[in-house]
Amino acid sequence: MTGTDLTQMQQPRFAGIPTFMRVPFSTDLSTFDIALAGVPFDGGVTARPGARFGPREIRNMSTMMRGIHHVTRFNPFDACRVADIGDVPFTDLYHLERAHEDIRRFFEPVFRAGKLALTAGGDHSITYPIFQALAPREPIALVHIDAHTDTWDTFKGSKFTHGAPFRRAVEAGLLDPKRTIQIGIRGAQNSDEGWRYSLDHGMRVVFIEEFDALGPAAVAAEARRIVGDAPVYLSLDVDGLDRVFTPGTGTPEVGGLTTRETQALLRGLDGLNWVGGDVVEVSPPYDPSGNTALVAATLMYEILCLLAKRASDGNR
Amino acid sequence: MTGTDLTQMQQPRFAGIPTFMRVPFSTDLSTFDIALAGVPFDGGVTARPGARFGPREIRNMSTMMRGIHHVTRFNPFDACRVADIGDVPFTDLYHLERAHEDIRRFFEPVFRAGKLALTAGGDHSITYPIFQALAPREPIALVHIDAHTDTWDTFKGSKFTHGAPFRRAVEAGLLDPKRTIQIGIRGAQNSDEGWRYSLDHGMRVVFIEEFDALGPAAVAAEARRIVGDAPVYLSLDVDGLDRVFTPGTGTPEVGGLTTRETQALLRGLDGLNWVGGDVVEVSPPYDPSGNTALVAATLMYEILCLLAKRASDGNR
Amino acid sequence: MTGTDLTQMQQPRFAGIPTFMRVPFSTDLSTFDIALAGVPFDGGVTARPGARFGPREIRNMSTMMRGIHHVTRFNPFDACRVADIGDVPFTDLYHLERAHEDIRRFFEPVFRAGKLALTAGGDHSITYPIFQALAPREPIALVHIDAHTDTWDTFKGSKFTHGAPFRRAVEAGLLDPKRTIQIGIRGAQNSDEGWRYSLDHGMRVVFIEEFDALGPAAVAAEARRIVGDAPVYLSLDVDGLDRVFTPGTGTPEVGGLTTRETQALLRGLDGLNWVGGDVVEVSPPYDPSGNTALVAATLMYEILCLLAKRASDGNR
Amino acid sequence: MTGTDLTQMQQPRFAGIPTFMRVPFSTDLSTFDIALAGVPFDGGVTARPGARFGPREIRNMSTMMRGIHHVTRFNPFDACRVADIGDVPFTDLYHLERAHEDIRRFFEPVFRAGKLALTAGGDHSITYPIFQALAPREPIALVHIDAHTDTWDTFKGSKFTHGAPFRRAVEAGLLDPKRTIQIGIRGAQNSDEGWRYSLDHGMRVVFIEEFDALGPAAVAAEARRIVGDAPVYLSLDVDGLDRVFTPGTGTPEVGGLTTRETQALLRGLDGLNWVGGDVVEVSPPYDPSGNTALVAATLMYEILCLLAKRASDGNR
Amino acid sequence: MTGTDLTQMQQPRFAGIPTFMRVPFSTDLSTFDIALAGVPFDGGVTARPGARFGPREIRNMSTMMRGIHHVTRFNPFDACRVADIGDVPFTDLYHLERAHEDIRRFFEPVFRAGKLALTAGGDHSITYPIFQALAPREPIALVHIDAHTDTWDTFKGSKFTHGAPFRRAVEAGLLDPKRTIQIGIRGAQNSDEGWRYSLDHGMRVVFIEEFDALGPAAVAAEARRIVGDAPVYLSLDVDGLDRVFTPGTGTPEVGGLTTRETQALLRGLDGLNWVGGDVVEVSPPYDPSGNTALVAATLMYEILCLLAKRASDGNR
Amino acid sequence: MTGTDLTQMQQPRFAGIPTFMRVPFSTDLSTFDIALAGVPFDGGVTARPGARFGPREIRNMSTMMRGIHHVTRFNPFDACRVADIGDVPFTDLYHLERAHEDIRRFFEPVFRAGKLALTAGGDHSITYPIFQALAPREPIALVHIDAHTDTWDTFKGSKFTHGAPFRRAVEAGLLDPKRTIQIGIRGAQNSDEGWRYSLDHGMRVVFIEEFDALGPAAVAAEARRIVGDAPVYLSLDVDGLDRVFTPGTGTPEVGGLTTRETQALLRGLDGLNWVGGDVVEVSPPYDPSGNTALVAATLMYEILCLLAKRASDGNR
Repeated sequence: MTGTDLTQMQQPRFAGIPTFMRVPFSTDLSTFDIALAGVPFDGGVTARPGARFGPREIRNMSTMMRGIHHVTRFNPFDACRVADIGDVPFTDLYHLERAHEDIRRFFEPVFRAGKLALTAGGDHSITYPIFQALAPREPIALVHIDAHTDTWDTFKGSKFTHGAPFRRAVEAGLLDPKRTIQIGIRGAQNSDEGWRYSLDHGMRVVFIEEFDALGPAAVAAEARRIVGDAPVYLSLDVDGLDRVFTPGTGTPEVGGLTTRETQALLRGLDGLNWVGGDVVEVSPPYDPSGNTALVAATLMYEILCLLAKRASDGNR
Repeated sequence: MTGTDLTQMQQPRFAGIPTFMRVPFSTDLSTFDIALAGVPFDGGVTARPGARFGPREIRNMSTMMRGIHHVTRFNPFDACRVADIGDVPFTDLYHLERAHEDIRRFFEPVFRAGKLALTAGGDHSITYPIFQALAPREPIALVHIDAHTDTWDTFKGSKFTHGAPFRRAVEAGLLDPKRTIQIGIRGAQNSDEGWRYSLDHGMRVVFIEEFDALGPAAVAAEARRIVGDAPVYLSLDVDGLDRVFTPGTGTPEVGGLTTRETQALLRGLDGLNWVGGDVVEVSPPYDPSGNTALVAATLMYEILCLLAKRASDGNR
Repeated sequence: MTGTDLTQMQQPRFAGIPTFMRVPFSTDLSTFDIALAGVPFDGGVTARPGARFGPREIRNMSTMMRGIHHVTRFNPFDACRVADIGDVPFTDLYHLERAHEDIRRFFEPVFRAGKLALTAGGDHSITYPIFQALAPREPIALVHIDAHTDTWDTFKGSKFTHGAPFRRAVEAGLLDPKRTIQIGIRGAQNSDEGWRYSLDHGMRVVFIEEFDALGPAAVAAEARRIVGDAPVYLSLDVDGLDRVFTPGTGTPEVGGLTTRETQALLRGLDGLNWVGGDVVEVSPPYDPSGNTALVAATLMYEILCLLAKRASDGNR
Repeated sequence: MTGTDLTQMQQPRFAGIPTFMRVPFSTDLSTFDIALAGVPFDGGVTARPGARFGPREIRNMSTMMRGIHHVTRFNPFDACRVADIGDVPFTDLYHLERAHEDIRRFFEPVFRAGKLALTAGGDHSITYPIFQALAPREPIALVHIDAHTDTWDTFKGSKFTHGAPFRRAVEAGLLDPKRTIQIGIRGAQNSDEGWRYSLDHGMRVVFIEEFDALGPAAVAAEARRIVGDAPVYLSLDVDGLDRVFTPGTGTPEVGGLTTRETQALLRGLDGLNWVGGDVVEVSPPYDPSGNTALVAATLMYEILCLLAKRASDGNR
Repeated sequence: MTGTDLTQMQQPRFAGIPTFMRVPFSTDLSTFDIALAGVPFDGGVTARPGARFGPREIRNMSTMMRGIHHVTRFNPFDACRVADIGDVPFTDLYHLERAHEDIRRFFEPVFRAGKLALTAGGDHSITYPIFQALAPREPIALVHIDAHTDTWDTFKGSKFTHGAPFRRAVEAGLLDPKRTIQIGIRGAQNSDEGWRYSLDHGMRVVFIEEFDALGPAAVAAEARRIVGDAPVYLSLDVDGLDRVFTPGTGTPEVGGLTTRETQALLRGLDGLNWVGGDVVEVSPPYDPSGNTALVAATLMYEILCLLAKRASDGNR
Repeated sequence: MTGTDLTQMQQPRFAGIPTFMRVPFSTDLSTFDIALAGVPFDGGVTARPGARFGPREIRNMSTMMRGIHHVTRFNPFDACRVADIGDVPFTDLYHLERAHEDIRRFFEPVFRAGKLALTAGGDHSITYPIFQALAPREPIALVHIDAHTDTWDTFKGSKFTHGAPFRRAVEAGLLDPKRTIQIGIRGAQNSDEGWRYSLDHGMRVVFIEEFDALGPAAVAAEARRIVGDAPVYLSLDVDGLDRVFTPGTGTPEVGGLTTRETQALLRGLDGLNWVGGDVVEVSPPYDPSGNTALVAATLMYEILCLLAKRASDGNR
């Protein structure tokens, strides 16, 4: 018996203690190229909570993931060393901004060591402290899949809710709005504040109607055009998909992307200069059939392939 | 403290006592242009019951609705005065025809006062007494989205079940079959009675295969052609959508419309001479994830935009 | 049509917009003796969230409540004027202490006007700001039913979580520990801090094993002895019951009270000098069968009978 | 291959088409001593529907039943010929009284042939037409386990709802109130009409508090005293049990009997002069874990043992 | 009363003991042309079990099926005699290969008598013993809808798991790989063994991306081309559909076919030389809304139409 | 960052990768006194599967566990070194006896090294290979809590199903029937084979009726009398509890133990000469509210206290 077989990857999918995609657990920066991380936090939501349990259920469902992509025959686990680095440890759960500090501190050594990170949320407010940890020399580019632009301002006492991360990131010089594309936007709003912010600052906003008209391949091309060769982050809120695919989320909107469209869109983003990504807003208490977590795990696998391609190209 | 903030519309979506879309509750006819009403009744179903809880769950989920439409930037709550007028009070629940009398009596003063009404069912049998309350001078036109034509005849002792409202309405001179379009029809039947009735009386029946071939824009155009400028009612049975979107319904059929298609179809109906509408057959006991009620609430919002455009144009 | 029939109390239980027990909604202090209030807040939990939806689901399930108690034949709605005063409006949801300020401000005018209040939580942290609003001249007595003593100290950055309200209340001179009885306590802990605090400060702690040995009647007698004729508050955390009765809660513990025992215990507390009460920690996302909310509504009715007896005696 | 192995009783519990307890299906009166029947009807409910699916789910769960009772070692299937006679066929579902006619007609030949019948409901309104079909020469005795006395009067247009069967049966001379015992009664009411009717007419009403004090053995003894040697029917509404055991029911009440108490109570009724029985108010849409149907099937098995003892004694 | 109305087909859908589509139960080979059969077995799964309950829930949901197809107006129940022949009786459940023997033995007399059989699984391992029972003189053709090619080899001690039936069938000379088309294939794998086997042996593998590009009509045409006029079997694993439509399955994959696409695909296969078919991998414990079983029942109805057309043509 | 904080025990209960009770994962025999192990296997069930997911869900729910017992103030994690040693790796899942070999092989080194093991099942068939791994010099004693005696013989092709482990253990000289007590037995059976075997071989069978009459303290005393000072194993099938507490199990029986009774019973067994224990038959797919897994985790904690007391006494 040795300690090395924690995740027992050769076992059936129902066996073993589930790390993300059953990769090794490791917090030793020298052992991996890409970190899979969890941020069990939902203190930034405006409607339904529960995303604090997102990482656990995504890990659980990610036991259904495998190595070789059926379209590309690329195996990210062969191309790179991938590790589960665990969940952000929190010192403060009751003041949004201090919790964000905990998140920032967790990711800083990972990015400082030049690793890529793929994160499972948690609510969307977590992307802002991740960007802070990234601390890019220049504002980065962003591919953002979501029902909402998340460029709203203050809500009920805080500027840092899950409706605001990208507004804060632009203000902080972390994100380049002109190299930002937001895809799948829809749903009525009581104010047009967020839509206006995105458009006024030069973000490319692809409302769902335009997505429907263009199709995923054309939208992916548009994303590649916007992003160019800038360092780019991929942020995917599961409410970008139609609520029927991802019922377990905090602010569901009907009328969104299908899984097939989302997979096609992601595959069309291959070859960009990825620095990281996240899949957020999985709320297991609202996910009786588990589909949301399975979709999230599957899309994390797709994003992992993007990151691993980039990391393995970079390795050459 | 005052009595005016019942619905606490500025509060988070989880707070407050839910009226439809958090509009004011009012039964004073002078206070609104459009009435949102509930008919908590499922005494007309032929298979699964539960739609009596439809209004309550739709109200609940409708707290997720907001004002400004993301495509048109139209805000129905700015354009019109919208009120929740509560649920039909019943004096008889155990004899279908007498329950229909209760429904008719509830809506009569609303229509008589020239208000538009948007109703949450309840099973589809309720549309017939609503038409009776409308008491149009001429037979009205109808856009009907459903898996079933609901032009069947007697079933198990009654001519007024949820399979029959539009047959009864034609017979009563309330509905003009030649200005009626039925969209999304599908599913095997033990008799072709209903299909035949619709076709024989000149209704335009768009089976799902035709819808699939034409797409929502063309079908909307066809609907506009059929309806013309006649006073027109919109009746949407949630089983018109694929059962995966609306599992909580009484007579589910797989293979139906998607949410995106339904939204596109509804938006294509803008500018017609609307007199009212309903969203029916939401059965919460069969809706473990709540998606059916959320879809229903979202489609009610879309229909409200249609009615409010009409009402506000009429106001000019 | 008039505005008076909002809750349509003569209608079937599935009809109408649900206020608590279908009493009138009113925020006019002159119209009621006892306020039923909601605090849709779960920002103080340490484990599972969701109690922000507690008031809504308790209102919903409380439509099953009726007037005449089957044991005493007492009807609280005849004895007193009872109103639903709605939910606490929040100005800050992202900093625990500021949210507590919102709660305090909501209840202050109610208590200042000499009304009794019965509150549906929300997590247990809300009881502390309610006590602040009560602002008793002398520390009050407490009957506290719970799996946990809720006299813990700081957790993850705050002294005001749902594990701490009664410690804070003692410190603030709001609660008299020597007139406090805690019933149903159980469950392992990583530190004995809370148990020790309660015992060291003279609270009467009835662990579940003692409850099991004595039975509800004897424990009720003990509670009456401890409380005496002091002004007394009743705080009932639904996790005091066995988790099988109340699965929808934030920190469930197996091995607790049954519904019958809890009802017997509450009925044994008749005649005390009640100033208010609450039923907290109902988390609907974890309540697939709805039993937790129904139990909470039923126990609120039992507590309402206690308060109404007191209020109507006081009226004489 | 022959037609005789429909229910494949030697197969695992998940195999085969489920009849009640996997007995043979037969409508030939010469082939059985005891009939197991279904009444898929919920047109008499006042709150939540769904009991129309009761027979199907009870049949499904009854595949878990077996022959030899673990206390008595009695095997009802050895002692008697037991058959599933299917479900009542309905000619009218939309007028309560006419549906009751269908029920009466279905049971008349069974009782006329001297068979015992054990019925799975359906709502409690069905017991009245079953009594009509029984057509006893003298009013029969009744052991009635329920949260409600079901001796209420008119509700929303009908005298025959599920709140009224035993009042109607007394009025029709079918039931002897003085030989009637009602066990488990509880829950607030808006009027004391039903309680008063039962008590005024001499029924023995064992409220849950008395049951709690006496225990099942003493209550069973009391039932035997009340019933004596009169022909007696057993009617068990699953809401007599605490709602935690039987969430899937139409009018749930917390604070009821446990399964163990109910089993002990039923076993204490052995040797009475049984003519039939029913288990009613199982509403599968409200039964996510299936416990209600399993409890109902298990209690049907207990009642079957009572009937089979009687039938086999009578055979001697 | 006679024994002939077991399934009570004229009754509402919630009434009666459910056979498949409410056809007569019969094991007399002279009474039917097409057999509907259940194989309640999941001993061959590699991930999630539960398909042993598939036949029961499909029967249950199949009560929603009716006769006349809405596109073709063909009624399979008029064209052929269709019977439910019950479930495979098992003598061994604990050794995969011996359980397969039980399956083979059950189907042999059916096929030997020249009947068509349409089977509800059970896991996909059951198709291999069905092919053995078919015992075709020449290897048959296959239309296979699935996320997985099911041409993998040994897993955890057996060559006969649900990942292997078509590899075993080719090896045994029962299946002609060159007349086999596999549609909907997708999802990452830890080895490309199965994909390679299919491609290397000449199977036509339509990955989901190709299906997406071509559409169901073109894929159906391709299937017709591959199959030609060979005797052909249709095997449909419900995980061929997107997991959102069929969550209740053993090895779910997101990104699959929709119900509408699957129906269109099946309708495009009319006129082939069908010898049988199956719908497998319905796992009810993972199907909280029941959609999987309803989809399975509906697709069985579509396949039944294909078989009945063939059988009735053959009758001429 | 170091590898030591995998389970992040100081984090909130929703954070971190869940080992059993968040103890360290280790397969190094020198690092622990008591092993917590999982056997994700349900190949021995006779009715409902799913227990293969038991270890994962029990680990998940066991994050709610803490250290200090509220009755004894004993902390097993202080008294002993406790490790999660992961799940049994399987080489054969499709032949019951070979899977049992895998289980035996996994536990042999643990017991050979003199460790105590507490196992989460998996179905009850796993206890037999655990006993084989224990390989006691003398037949051991047993405290067995269950609805069934599990001393049945062959079923559907195997002598090693979950109905047979204790019969096999007696036959193999591993278990002393005269030092065996079986508690909670109930439920009808088609044959009395198992009951007879237990009684004929001198096992002390406490049917639920006797348990009800005696109470947990007296039954615990009886268990201590039967077991004496022999090495003793505790095997707890969650169906020993009433199905309402543990719906997620393979062969549920209503009318069983409550959680409070079970906890009291277990606490009464302190001081015996424990060699190991298990909690089996948790089937998460049938556990919509998660109560079964939480009960199992809580009872594992109680058993761990028994084992740790023994181990720490032995350490002295």
